[in-house]
Amino acid sequence: MRLASLFAGLSALLATGLAPAFAAGPAATTIPDRALATAETLRAQGLKDDLAWTLTEDLTTSIGPRLAGSANDLKAREWMAARFRALGFDTVRTEPVSYPKWVRRSESGAIVAPVAQTLALTALGNSGPTPKGGLTAEVAAFASLEALQAATDAAVRGKIVYVANPRMSVRVDGADYGKGSRVRSRGPSLAAQKGAAAFVLRSVGSDNNRTPHTGVTSFADGVTPIPAAALSNPDADLLDTVLRRSAPVSLRLDLDCGLEGEYTGANVIGEISGRDDAGEYVLTGGHLDSWDLGTGAIDDASGIAITTAAAHLIAQLPERPRRSIRVVAFANEEAGLYGGKAYAENHRAEIAKAVIGAESDAGADRIVKLTATVKPSARGAIDRIAAALAPLGVTYDAAAPGSGGSDLSAVHAVGMAGLSLHQDTSRYFEWHHTANDTLDKVDIEQLRQNVAVYAVALYLAAEAEGDFGSAPGAFAKDGAN
Amino acid sequence: MRLASLFAGLSALLATGLAPAFAAGPAATTIPDRALATAETLRAQGLKDDLAWTLTEDLTTSIGPRLAGSANDLKAREWMAARFRALGFDTVRTEPVSYPKWVRRSESGAIVAPVAQTLALTALGNSGPTPKGGLTAEVAAFASLEALQAATDAAVRGKIVYVANPRMSVRVDGADYGKGSRVRSRGPSLAAQKGAAAFVLRSVGSDNNRTPHTGVTSFADGVTPIPAAALSNPDADLLDTVLRRSAPVSLRLDLDCGLEGEYTGANVIGEISGRDDAGEYVLTGGHLDSWDLGTGAIDDASGIAITTAAAHLIAQLPERPRRSIRVVAFANEEAGLYGGKAYAENHRAEIAKAVIGAESDAGADRIVKLTATVKPSARGAIDRIAAALAPLGVTYDAAAPGSGGSDLSAVHAVGMAGLSLHQDTSRYFEWHHTANDTLDKVDIEQLRQNVAVYAVALYLAAEAEGDFGSAPGAFAKDGAN
Repeated sequence: MRLASLFAGLSALLATGLAPAFAAGPAATTIPDRALATAETLRAQGLKDDLAWTLTEDLTTSIGPRLAGSANDLKAREWMAARFRALGFDTVRTEPVSYPKWVRRSESGAIVAPVAQTLALTALGNSGPTPKGGLTAEVAAFASLEALQAATDAAVRGKIVYVANPRMSVRVDGADYGKGSRVRSRGPSLAAQKGAAAFVLRSVGSDNNRTPHTGVTSFADGVTPIPAAALSNPDADLLDTVLRRSAPVSLRLDLDCGLEGEYTGANVIGEISGRDDAGEYVLTGGHLDSWDLGTGAIDDASGIAITTAAAHLIAQLPERPRRSIRVVAFANEEAGLYGGKAYAENHRAEIAKAVIGAESDAGADRIVKLTATVKPSARGAIDRIAAALAPLGVTYDAAAPGSGGSDLSAVHAVGMAGLSLHQDTSRYFEWHHTANDTLDKVDIEQLRQNVAVYAVALYLAAEAEGDFGSAPGAFAKDGAN
Repeated sequence: MRLASLFAGLSALLATGLAPAFAAGPAATTIPDRALATAETLRAQGLKDDLAWTLTEDLTTSIGPRLAGSANDLKAREWMAARFRALGFDTVRTEPVSYPKWVRRSESGAIVAPVAQTLALTALGNSGPTPKGGLTAEVAAFASLEALQAATDAAVRGKIVYVANPRMSVRVDGADYGKGSRVRSRGPSLAAQKGAAAFVLRSVGSDNNRTPHTGVTSFADGVTPIPAAALSNPDADLLDTVLRRSAPVSLRLDLDCGLEGEYTGANVIGEISGRDDAGEYVLTGGHLDSWDLGTGAIDDASGIAITTAAAHLIAQLPERPRRSIRVVAFANEEAGLYGGKAYAENHRAEIAKAVIGAESDAGADRIVKLTATVKPSARGAIDRIAAALAPLGVTYDAAAPGSGGSDLSAVHAVGMAGLSLHQDTSRYFEWHHTANDTLDKVDIEQLRQNVAVYAVALYLAAEAEGDFGSAPGAFAKDGAN
């Protein structure tokens, strides 16, 4: 049993009032009744919100793709700071974030033998380039990452390694994503270590469109990046069929991409000041960068927009919340959570002031579930937040941990309590990291539900009497991610 | 009231036996009871068929895209003739078909002002090229083809005309397709006549993928082809948003494509000989060419496969049907029904021998409805065919005409009776004419239902006692298409 589950079970007991004998521990964190009444107003306002749509439309239309380190990355930061200012955020600033810059110039590929067929594919982030004019080699196909791990170097050397599985099914909780992203993250380095010329995999996505899913890979220290690409799912099906019918099969890959020095971008931070001046804040946001194939609407313009709109709604209340609401537009999430890691490093010493964090980074569809990782004596406060969200269709799993989201995972790891607001990802993984990540995929009614949920959750957390347990190293072993 | 409807109403009366006074006309065409019993066997065999899948897989995997006049066009004809022979068709031959050859070399586009965004677009068949290095011009946007028609030359001259509508909704009968394809067919020529530099339209498709829908356009005599392209629906949405937010808007198009002389391909014909030697036959088939963006699985490898598999099933019966079954793999349907028109011209004089025709060219999903255009005294035979198809979920609209399908429209127009087996096109128009037209879109169970329907319908028509009214000029005005 994980520690968080034990805590959750205990706090559930406390919350029901069935175990008064245990209540003699630390003072319980509570949510004042007055705040709950205000939360009802915010909930109603969130459901009528237009700001999140306006921000999502503007970022995806006026700027579009925002690959970390690109010219649009800078434009997006300027846009974000200007929006925070225009919306009346009290503090607007940036914190520098440095990372290796990866660029994509062009990409193409084909099956060249025993049949000739063009392939819809896309280079993975951190992929190396092919030689000029492309690379042609025989395919070494594997059913799984484990099968590749078990292969001899001789079976792989000089070949294009293809990992054909897993196939991703449609799930509300996106449960299959981890299996596929593991192949994407680890496969290319493993293939390179065995002497492969290149690496391709089935897209990590649940769709059947010829829009391949990019995403980051990483090469172990000392391993020279090889060309690495994802085939669209129909193209993976085609390659599977060709391999089943006859062998050997040869591919041509022509990827012009690669690392290009170091870049310094920034997290852009907008804050609504609380009425207390203790420096405590509730942390929220999304990531400002996106992959370059689409316009980054659901990954993650909508997350930026939802959390900014929620903070803005709170700022319009007659009275400011007790604590500040800090919205962070994180830098370069896609290539490895650089913005989140930099934030954690910068704010590690004062992590107790980040009372709890909740980030939006799984699209624009409705929030279906709340989980949290907090100290046991704050579980009652989470219960009250959950109750305030229930009318919005949000369920509560008190036994599961919650880091607060991908960009907050590093901040959580250094000790911030986390509140995870899980979205329905049934549609998300059809479009995630593809050319199809565009504004038309955003449903304004579901977007508004997100704004309402964040406004309520952020506000109630900011009004809580008592903290959620944030402290250096507090949740190092809770298993949340 | 259309003539066909009048006929249909009259024949419905005849079929019910409520109007015996009218029955003193020509002898009614009938379907023998023995043939109906055999049809039940075919129906069951069709539902277990694997041949249609095998053929669809093989054509889309071993050859793939089959743009008329391309190297793959020839490969596909050789493949088709070889398959007919291998399957034991009694006669295999070709009939030449000539047409202007159009080629696509490369294509790209972007919004360049007031924002910079890459556009997913594809040139229309018969599109002219842009100048080398591309063409940049201001957009002249119109809500409809009618609005473009009403525009002055001055409003259009030198600009890139954009027609923003219609949007296509998902319909079982694909009813919206005609509205969109009218813009695609006529818009570019109209824009060129008014002096436009180029033409773009919203894709004629019901999806929200960044896979634009190509399709043919045509330029009036004496009009020089201008560059003409379809934007994917999300890209049309983006352009709409940009136009709504600010004007003027400029696009860059770079289309390397155009007409390249005359090409002579062929219709490939495989025939199962009937037991009578009167030379009469039932005509079926699909088109062998496809657009080049996908592998032409649902448009129209599946049509070729369904009708070939149905004819092959009939050929395996202990006794051949009375009339022959002729399967035609038509040439260059996509650029203007060239194969169908050539067939009609070649066989015009002996059209009475083509007793009825039914072609498959709307994907691989299940057949939901039967309509027919036949002489009134053959309506009873159609009623019996419809009854034999009812267990397969096929409804019957006796009042609507049926030409037999797109490739047969020209043959129908010179006098062949038509039997139209309408497929569910809810999914078809998501993928039609896009890169997404690939094998994974074919559902083997629905494909089998098609084989069963065709096997039953073709067999019963071949066994009919009496004809369906095919004669020179017989159905010139029935309104079927």
